[in-house]
Amino acid sequence: MKCQLTVHYRNSVKFIEAKSGDNLLGLLREHNIDLTTPCGGGGRCGKCKVKLLKQGGCSEQEMTSLEREVLSPAEKKSGIRLACRTVVSGDLTIVLEDKTKIAVLTSGLQFEPRLNHGIKRVTVMLDQATRAVQSDLLQQICDRIEGDDLRPEKVGLAGLKQLEQLDPGKPILVTTYRDQEILSFEQGGAEKGLYGLAIDLGTTTIALFLIDLSSGEEIDVYTLLNPQQRFGVDLISRINYSRTESKGVAKLTRVLLAALNVGIDVLLTRHSLKRGQLLLAAIAGNTVMLHTLLAVSAQSIAIAPFTPVFTAALEFKAPEIGLKIATAGMVKLLPAVSGYFGADLMADLLAIDFPVDQWNLLLDIGTNGEIILGKGERLLACSAAAGPAFEGGNISWGMAAVPGAISSYCFNQGQVHYTTIAGAKARGICGSGLVDLIAELLKAGLLDNTGAFRNKDKLPATAGGLITDYKGRPAFLVAPAPETASGEDIILTQQDIREFQLARGAIMAGIKILLKEAGIDFSALAHLYLAGGFGNYIEPANAVAIGLVPALLAEKVVKVGNGAGTGAKLYLLDQDLKDYSDELRKKVTYIELSSRKDFQTEFINSMNFCTSG
Amino acid sequence: MKCQLTVHYRNSVKFIEAKSGDNLLGLLREHNIDLTTPCGGGGRCGKCKVKLLKQGGCSEQEMTSLEREVLSPAEKKSGIRLACRTVVSGDLTIVLEDKTKIAVLTSGLQFEPRLNHGIKRVTVMLDQATRAVQSDLLQQICDRIEGDDLRPEKVGLAGLKQLEQLDPGKPILVTTYRDQEILSFEQGGAEKGLYGLAIDLGTTTIALFLIDLSSGEEIDVYTLLNPQQRFGVDLISRINYSRTESKGVAKLTRVLLAALNVGIDVLLTRHSLKRGQLLLAAIAGNTVMLHTLLAVSAQSIAIAPFTPVFTAALEFKAPEIGLKIATAGMVKLLPAVSGYFGADLMADLLAIDFPVDQWNLLLDIGTNGEIILGKGERLLACSAAAGPAFEGGNISWGMAAVPGAISSYCFNQGQVHYTTIAGAKARGICGSGLVDLIAELLKAGLLDNTGAFRNKDKLPATAGGLITDYKGRPAFLVAPAPETASGEDIILTQQDIREFQLARGAIMAGIKILLKEAGIDFSALAHLYLAGGFGNYIEPANAVAIGLVPALLAEKVVKVGNGAGTGAKLYLLDQDLKDYSDELRKKVTYIELSSRKDFQTEFINSMNFCTSG
Repeated sequence: MKCQLTVHYRNSVKFIEAKSGDNLLGLLREHNIDLTTPCGGGGRCGKCKVKLLKQGGCSEQEMTSLEREVLSPAEKKSGIRLACRTVVSGDLTIVLEDKTKIAVLTSGLQFEPRLNHGIKRVTVMLDQATRAVQSDLLQQICDRIEGDDLRPEKVGLAGLKQLEQLDPGKPILVTTYRDQEILSFEQGGAEKGLYGLAIDLGTTTIALFLIDLSSGEEIDVYTLLNPQQRFGVDLISRINYSRTESKGVAKLTRVLLAALNVGIDVLLTRHSLKRGQLLLAAIAGNTVMLHTLLAVSAQSIAIAPFTPVFTAALEFKAPEIGLKIATAGMVKLLPAVSGYFGADLMADLLAIDFPVDQWNLLLDIGTNGEIILGKGERLLACSAAAGPAFEGGNISWGMAAVPGAISSYCFNQGQVHYTTIAGAKARGICGSGLVDLIAELLKAGLLDNTGAFRNKDKLPATAGGLITDYKGRPAFLVAPAPETASGEDIILTQQDIREFQLARGAIMAGIKILLKEAGIDFSALAHLYLAGGFGNYIEPANAVAIGLVPALLAEKVVKVGNGAGTGAKLYLLDQDLKDYSDELRKKVTYIELSSRKDFQTEFINSMNFCTSG
Repeated sequence: MKCQLTVHYRNSVKFIEAKSGDNLLGLLREHNIDLTTPCGGGGRCGKCKVKLLKQGGCSEQEMTSLEREVLSPAEKKSGIRLACRTVVSGDLTIVLEDKTKIAVLTSGLQFEPRLNHGIKRVTVMLDQATRAVQSDLLQQICDRIEGDDLRPEKVGLAGLKQLEQLDPGKPILVTTYRDQEILSFEQGGAEKGLYGLAIDLGTTTIALFLIDLSSGEEIDVYTLLNPQQRFGVDLISRINYSRTESKGVAKLTRVLLAALNVGIDVLLTRHSLKRGQLLLAAIAGNTVMLHTLLAVSAQSIAIAPFTPVFTAALEFKAPEIGLKIATAGMVKLLPAVSGYFGADLMADLLAIDFPVDQWNLLLDIGTNGEIILGKGERLLACSAAAGPAFEGGNISWGMAAVPGAISSYCFNQGQVHYTTIAGAKARGICGSGLVDLIAELLKAGLLDNTGAFRNKDKLPATAGGLITDYKGRPAFLVAPAPETASGEDIILTQQDIREFQLARGAIMAGIKILLKEAGIDFSALAHLYLAGGFGNYIEPANAVAIGLVPALLAEKVVKVGNGAGTGAKLYLLDQDLKDYSDELRKKVTYIELSSRKDFQTEFINSMNFCTSG
């Protein structure tokens, strides 16, 4: 039996077609609504609470034993249930809690944007006398918009069809772009505010910033996990998927656009805006993400000579690519440099705006460590294949920076303190927690310089019972079973430390190659910019402790926050940044580390914890 | 029962879905295949012959009595039948005769086109070394196309998706437009010829000229009756239809595009071309036709202040407007000046290219008489609402210039000679026949200067029995019953002559107003250009006789032929004509005759046959 699921979330309502027998959690996931499900929907964690409304019976009998156990009497009474245990049996309305959200870094450097986005609205009144003059409506309107070089040729078919519908005797509201193009005609009247979207299209997380185009102010942000993750957590897996699956590229694009469009709906509903008010979008992302956004296969980036199909600053009418802002809206993609120097890094550069008379280093650590060393006309860049360790990947109890992740860790005289994201029960360790952990283990002398756990007889007494055993090798007990969500120990293994060393080593080697190329050493650096979620959460002292940041640079660290997001906002608001970023592109020399003979040497030299600086 | 109708026409094959019981003629009409049907499909004229192939039985018994009568034994044996009498009873294959076509003027002035259409094809070979350089495919290709200012930003989404499919290790064929835009990428190899279409979109008839873009040569032409005629023969009726019928505008557009696309299919098939080779189209037509082509309502042209939505030289990617040339193809519309000075007149001007140091007059007679008087920087234009008399409309036995129409008429000493289009049995009188008739009647003294038939007692003896009576008033017997297709007399009535006088008077008044505005008289004119089908078929001597052309201009008449078609061809082949026609537009002063107080006076003064010159 078909039935309808109505989902309320903040001020937004979404309608989902369901059939009886569907699992509620599965249904929500299919429609890009990601609830916090530490146990993966296995009915163990009790986190996927939803409130059921307008359904016949919600009696105690229908509850599972887990629900009876984890829900408070008040919750039970108000209709709170667990989505993973709920089976749809008819039309159903649910309310999601406001806190149902994931932690994505959305704040960036403070910036004073130049308001030069190019969208203008003018109300034109054609009096009868004007209209009677030998001319056409389009030409008359163009003539009435002062100071613009608008040519009727630049109106699209959609614009013509809008114009035809209007009463030329009444005011006409004309929206123009870059003083050159007519985006739309509407019957005039009160002009409503105009808004834009800056989108940071990350491999793992996506953020949509709603920006008031009249002030440049950030009104709201909607964040989500990249729904393409279901086809592979890393880009190469997704490219493989797109290559081997029929219509794989189209599928990657479809889920991405569907998720972005849900985000747009939510933002519009939250702020009671009409879609027609959302006239501009600027999108930053790595080169693979921008290819999949356009349903252009990114295969060529994955195989030698790793050449992407495009890197230019492209611009589209929104309906062309399927982004549901205003029909007349424009979407601009930030330019990239190459397959491995994406528009996300370009956005970082726009956000930071490197001082030109000093050497500066930018480090954006995600699955790859993106490194840019720049001064004046020179920008040296490389991408160190660090792997996902800094994002919690390839680590036994690693996880993304979502609720329940241990994000900071302190080990002092045998006393352990850690915090988790959203204060949830510990479920695993995310990147910044990993750095803290390793820094503490080094400081406490539990690890030697090679990263190996010291022999038991050489361990300090404070280690107490924290050194344990994992598959026959020494390991560190991060959080004991009673404290954790799963009721099982969270452990850092020797192998995890090796993974971390490989990631850190790759990044350090990349930095050293760039310094060598520039002919400088660390002391020449004016600033070390740390961008991205990992860079923002990391404790500078611990970054020094693990040798990711040389001690002499500790004072020079500047946290950029979400540089890609900030750059996208700047790009959204200032059309001149297109030419500026084209200039930046020309300055970049990308150094392919794998083709450098000295990379392996630097890599090996960077493995040990004593080699930094 | 559903069945398939397969239609062979010249080298083209068309498949039509049918069901048993369908009338074959009706089915063909529905699919824009117009057979010659003087009797309108009533089973009387025997003209709609088709050859049936691959159908079980075509025995004598199945024939109607008409078929048995009009078809020769050889025809019967070879499967020739009448479409109007044929009922579909299963899958059916038919062959249409080559001569199944309508007479539309497709020839124009001789011209030497400048080959500057802007479409270029370049084969680019990216070697591995080039590809490995830090860049993207799109940029590398742009860099390899010499002498062009191609920016990757100008490639559309379709181009990107093509590029992604190609093997960059093999030659890539790049098609560019105006040295600025990339239209398409294909895997290289042998380059095929490129073709363009010049389209003359008339109210009554449409012509598609297939042009070889490498030589400018006209390869072929496909002509058809404007299928919008089913919604009204004149533009105002069609605008009314579009206003009162739900989705009326869309319907007008749909039938028009369907017919144009059939024409394209026929041309491609006849010359074994691929659609991808047809990369450019230029379209001329009056302002209403160009509005309906784009599915933009032309309503505003029909009501005061008669302002069209657009007149500019617009350009679209072919799929945007639904014209089925190459997917990457571009369609350019010639610019108009106003609702009543359309792109068809602009095309006339381009075709004629008025000498700038002399006064010249252009007369394009269709439903309206379009008149342009020009010298140097001045172009004075007006449109005289002549009505359809010159096209055979509003005339009792009037008809379009299709087979069976009396197109020339000679009356000498009581001897009558006339010719019909395609030599068919006379069915009526078309415009040029009407002019000849009236000229002869005037010369023979059968009409007085006011256009009235002389009293019987004043008639010359040669009139013999040709003066007859129609509804109580005198009339002229043009073709007696035994000679005609219908077996009934074809008659020219007093009312018909009045209609003709009104039409001629309106045009003459228009010409005089323009001359007055310019401050010149007929003697100042260097040339009198006659454009359009009517202008081409008319005998100059008779045009003088009826006072449409002053006697002193008889030697200065230049027949332009299909000026709109010629102008469209020139516009197709030379991109610089866009700017040139924009210049022409600025020079035009359009004179609205209805707003001139002196128009009525001139109109009345022009009614009599003695007032010309």
